[in-house]
Amino acid sequence: MASRLDSTALDQLFLEARTHNAWLPKDVPDTLLQEIVDLAKMGPTSANCSPTRIVFVKSEDGKKRLSPFLSSGNRDKTMQAPVCAILGYDMRFFEQLPKLFPHNLSARTWFESSEEMARTTAMRNGSLQGAYFMLAARAVGLDCGPMSGFDNAGVDKEFFAGTDVKSNFLCNLGYGDPKGLFERSPRFSFDEMARIV
Amino acid sequence: MASRLDSTALDQLFLEARTHNAWLPKDVPDTLLQEIVDLAKMGPTSANCSPTRIVFVKSEDGKKRLSPFLSSGNRDKTMQAPVCAILGYDMRFFEQLPKLFPHNLSARTWFESSEEMARTTAMRNGSLQGAYFMLAARAVGLDCGPMSGFDNAGVDKEFFAGTDVKSNFLCNLGYGDPKGLFERSPRFSFDEMARIV
Repeated sequence: MASRLDSTALDQLFLEARTHNAWLPKDVPDTLLQEIVDLAKMGPTSANCSPTRIVFVKSEDGKKRLSPFLSSGNRDKTMQAPVCAILGYDMRFFEQLPKLFPHNLSARTWFESSEEMARTTAMRNGSLQGAYFMLAARAVGLDCGPMSGFDNAGVDKEFFAGTDVKSNFLCNLGYGDPKGLFERSPRFSFDEMARIV
Repeated sequence: MASRLDSTALDQLFLEARTHNAWLPKDVPDTLLQEIVDLAKMGPTSANCSPTRIVFVKSEDGKKRLSPFLSSGNRDKTMQAPVCAILGYDMRFFEQLPKLFPHNLSARTWFESSEEMARTTAMRNGSLQGAYFMLAARAVGLDCGPMSGFDNAGVDKEFFAGTDVKSNFLCNLGYGDPKGLFERSPRFSFDEMARIV
């Protein structure tokens, strides 16, 4: 039986972690990006469907390709960030199920027969994996700056052409400069969002 | 600048954590459920929109109300679990934005004017918060058993009647009995799901 993580870890993952808007000039090595993926991919998805696909935009050339599709409020901070991860999900994730879910070879047919179920499953589980990704980044000492404000269709054409991957959200990664933080926004009380029956 | 969590914490959150199917007969106190929510709600959502709503089904009566809507493969283990959390998202989350995102009072209108954008935002961010929830549960020493196999419309009618909340997924909570574990399913290699440009 697991014990609870110490308060330093809970602060780092949840309570003190913040969405960052400014970045210290410190490189994020590729090995750390690989570790984030290798942590995040172990989180649970429905029938282990693992729909998330990721492009880490790190080079100057990559940033130039991404820039035109960013909303004006997200452009400068993304160009300044050491890395911007494009989190997408594969709409035809189910083609991989014979590999990912080998103990039930009929799983693929659950999704092949319903486009609506496939779309919902891709979005739900792609987003779950996106959250695992952000908490994995925080767990290895990075800060995150997730964003929804961008031209999804443009990003898909530029970075996922010839595939069935659709962009979900973007996440800047690096070591945040606290000078760029906004004031913490309020949260619901327990009773406003949950109940026990 | 944060340091990395130790390997015990990474194992507990990601690498050794498993989806559980059998549960030890050990109660989960309400205070722990409240703590999970108070951790998970601090994770980032788009414009702090926080669409997730949760019903913790813990009593015998609550379990009886939930049971008819579970798929046959999910019923027995859910009845045995100390708690089953219903994770839903509020389709009219944007009505709360003046409270949750007070520094931009126009945010509400972004979603009022597009049902499609509201639906996508609710699903994406509701699922992000669902993942924060599961990792928060693991962080305080609990095990999770997430499930998609249930009658969503039936659960919505029984537990979210009179609201605009839609169920997203279910998650059993407790202290897992390793005897009920399945074999670990394979994961993609880094190169199969990510690239650096």
